[in-house]
Amino acid sequence: MSTHPLEEILHPQSIAVVGASAGIVARGFDWVSYLSESGFKGKIYPVNPKYAEIRGLKAYPSLREVPGPVDYVISVAPASAVLNILEDSAPKGVKCVHLFTARLSETGRPEAAELERAILRQAKKLGIRLIGPNCMGVYYPKEGISFNENFPRQSGSAGLAAQSGSVSNEAIRLAAQRGVYFSKAISYGNALDFNECDFLEYFAQDAETKLILMYVEGVRDGKRFFSSLSQAAATKPVIVLKGGRGESGTRATASHTASLAGSMKIWNTMVTQAGAVSAESLNELIDLAAAFYFLPPIKGLRVGVAGGAGGTTVMSADHCEEAGLDVIPLPAEIREELKAKGNPIWDWIGNPADGSIRATDDFTAGDILQMMANNQNFDLLITHINEPHHRSQGQEISAETHLKQYKLEMRTQKPLLAVIPDKPAGINDDDERIREVMSATRTKLLETSIPVYPTIERAASAARKLVEYYRRKK
Amino acid sequence: MSTHPLEEILHPQSIAVVGASAGIVARGFDWVSYLSESGFKGKIYPVNPKYAEIRGLKAYPSLREVPGPVDYVISVAPASAVLNILEDSAPKGVKCVHLFTARLSETGRPEAAELERAILRQAKKLGIRLIGPNCMGVYYPKEGISFNENFPRQSGSAGLAAQSGSVSNEAIRLAAQRGVYFSKAISYGNALDFNECDFLEYFAQDAETKLILMYVEGVRDGKRFFSSLSQAAATKPVIVLKGGRGESGTRATASHTASLAGSMKIWNTMVTQAGAVSAESLNELIDLAAAFYFLPPIKGLRVGVAGGAGGTTVMSADHCEEAGLDVIPLPAEIREELKAKGNPIWDWIGNPADGSIRATDDFTAGDILQMMANNQNFDLLITHINEPHHRSQGQEISAETHLKQYKLEMRTQKPLLAVIPDKPAGINDDDERIREVMSATRTKLLETSIPVYPTIERAASAARKLVEYYRRKK
Repeated sequence: MSTHPLEEILHPQSIAVVGASAGIVARGFDWVSYLSESGFKGKIYPVNPKYAEIRGLKAYPSLREVPGPVDYVISVAPASAVLNILEDSAPKGVKCVHLFTARLSETGRPEAAELERAILRQAKKLGIRLIGPNCMGVYYPKEGISFNENFPRQSGSAGLAAQSGSVSNEAIRLAAQRGVYFSKAISYGNALDFNECDFLEYFAQDAETKLILMYVEGVRDGKRFFSSLSQAAATKPVIVLKGGRGESGTRATASHTASLAGSMKIWNTMVTQAGAVSAESLNELIDLAAAFYFLPPIKGLRVGVAGGAGGTTVMSADHCEEAGLDVIPLPAEIREELKAKGNPIWDWIGNPADGSIRATDDFTAGDILQMMANNQNFDLLITHINEPHHRSQGQEISAETHLKQYKLEMRTQKPLLAVIPDKPAGINDDDERIREVMSATRTKLLETSIPVYPTIERAASAARKLVEYYRRKK
Repeated sequence: MSTHPLEEILHPQSIAVVGASAGIVARGFDWVSYLSESGFKGKIYPVNPKYAEIRGLKAYPSLREVPGPVDYVISVAPASAVLNILEDSAPKGVKCVHLFTARLSETGRPEAAELERAILRQAKKLGIRLIGPNCMGVYYPKEGISFNENFPRQSGSAGLAAQSGSVSNEAIRLAAQRGVYFSKAISYGNALDFNECDFLEYFAQDAETKLILMYVEGVRDGKRFFSSLSQAAATKPVIVLKGGRGESGTRATASHTASLAGSMKIWNTMVTQAGAVSAESLNELIDLAAAFYFLPPIKGLRVGVAGGAGGTTVMSADHCEEAGLDVIPLPAEIREELKAKGNPIWDWIGNPADGSIRATDDFTAGDILQMMANNQNFDLLITHINEPHHRSQGQEISAETHLKQYKLEMRTQKPLLAVIPDKPAGINDDDERIREVMSATRTKLLETSIPVYPTIERAASAARKLVEYYRRKK
């Protein structure tokens, strides 16, 4: 099996940033910093005739003056400079140019589209591959390549190919909050040379990637896309989010990455037939990523729910059912066991188990969840993780004592999803300790491979799609 | 017009808490504190033979020994004590007993259901009204009546009647985060005496309430409910969330507040025919509450969107369209105006306006939103509020400078909704200043009567339901 061309490209020994700026650049794009702060171990060459030094590194007036070979170029220069950059790249042995450079075909202007075509012709002639234009390029934490100073240094097993830079940024940030980390992520913009199919094919054969996430606005070649998607989906789960689904979104797509969108119905059918999974929003992409990242295959839809209280329990049942899960009644064996143990609410507790109708303080949601985990009638479990009480019997609150009641060790017996509601940005908890406990709780859950969802609707929907995926696989 | 019986009940001069506990009570229920800390100005009488003093107040062994009249009783005592409490209440002139007391018909046990019926008979005989059992009772911030030490002291114009205590707690907390405050909220549990219809009728005639929110698990009398709902909806907007929608939710409902649920389809038709609005989840209830609380009537579906970037813009269009809004192309007049002003991206910018394709740093999302506000083709506007850049040109970040770019003054010309993504609980911002800016930003938006949503899907869906509501009203 021959190596995919991206394999060598993604392991450069030297990167030149052409059009690099010194100090705090406009709108925060500072690739020299991104590379040095992300731990890139190869050479970094800032190129800009206006500066002698950028971020402590010698700056070169042009690519030609860089000493030694250059494997990879990041172009931050204006579109008008790109043909020259390609000319200068060839003698340095550059294998790939990432064009952050934009204002090409996505502007809808004929002269910009013509320049874009000329760039492709020139690159092909010189044997240089292109990522972009109009994109953020490569995030490869293991190699210290990044396009945002706030991305995690930690590597993971998810791969992302996204046509949009802002979606890439958001997806990586949101995924990290949910414990999902990346092997590599590529923002590929106008897809002039390398396109969605290349990235799918690359990720399909990449041993570092176990799960593929895609954000696609349009595809250049529908037949090849179906084939690449099918082949990738045969090797590992692929989740696809389509941007530009309706009339206005298609219009917005045209001015964003100049892609043509098709009818959503045809699209969804195609994705399913290829064996991949469709996401309808960025949040759903991340929800599904967390499910596939952490959960084993789930064989059925019978769910046990615990940890909410009162009306929350009632609505948990509604939301699970509306997501297509089967909220079965509490099995008779569990009732019998509760009765045998002398539990006074043996005849009253159900599924979902209402956390507020506890018989005693030492019979918790975790106990009923543990019994559900041991019971063969359940295929999966969902637990609500509450904030600790402000007044917790005067005891010091800790994540350990807080989590103890949930008995999470039983997730080894049964797939388990946790629900912790989000908070509005800029809202401060009245108690810093509660925030600390919830932070430690979240960390502990993710370390234990329990995906965390902000609502039970989203947990149930992700679980349902996971079950459907594995049923189709069979 | 005669006064609604709840009017007098909700203005007690004295409240006795029967079964009150001292110190930190089990599971955090401490009504004596709730009342004193919420600023209740009348007399508070703790009643419990086990204590001489509770929270600094003299405790009485029984209701009969309380000096002077008692208007309102909160029963925290076990179910077996309620008949005696009623007996003791009559001679004190008690008008209403709120039964926090639970473990009655919701347990499904015949003897508990029989006791519940006996309680009702006794109360009727003695001329005492009941709220509950199995509920949290009354939150009336203006009168200093509360059932949670963390509820806002601030009053507002939303009224809430909720069958579930946990849903009441959540709804009040979530609403406050979105700037929605309450005239009064009532958690009414098993609805033995006062039920959903009484609360609807009360709120309909209550001058302090401009908007009614309901969480209902079941109704005792369908015909009366339709009539009460129709009459209330004729006076002010009513938003209804139904818990126990499916088979399993109905099962959970039975063990929660012993209600019988009906088919959701019939339910939704009934709610719409009554002129009210259906919510499908607690989050949607709050989303709709924020829309009706802050926005004027919106006449049409044509939306202008600005402030996102790249793929976020593309998906904004998708989500608005999928919610049923009409994302019209950027009107020609705006293009002409941009062109006349020499704006170099006049032919490229669209609706949604991509915040990343700005011509110059002083042409912001706010400028395009301002032009949309002035343009008669738009019925409403949605803006994404981003976090400030970590490196903001070296300047000190403040909410004022951050918000300036959004030009929110134009919301006086056109209804405006803002989108600020939520954060996972327990995730710390890497920059405390950003959290402060976002907190001040949120406060400023809400003070300016701009509702804030965590996603554009939810903003668009709330706006769509608001438009439909006002169209039906006509």
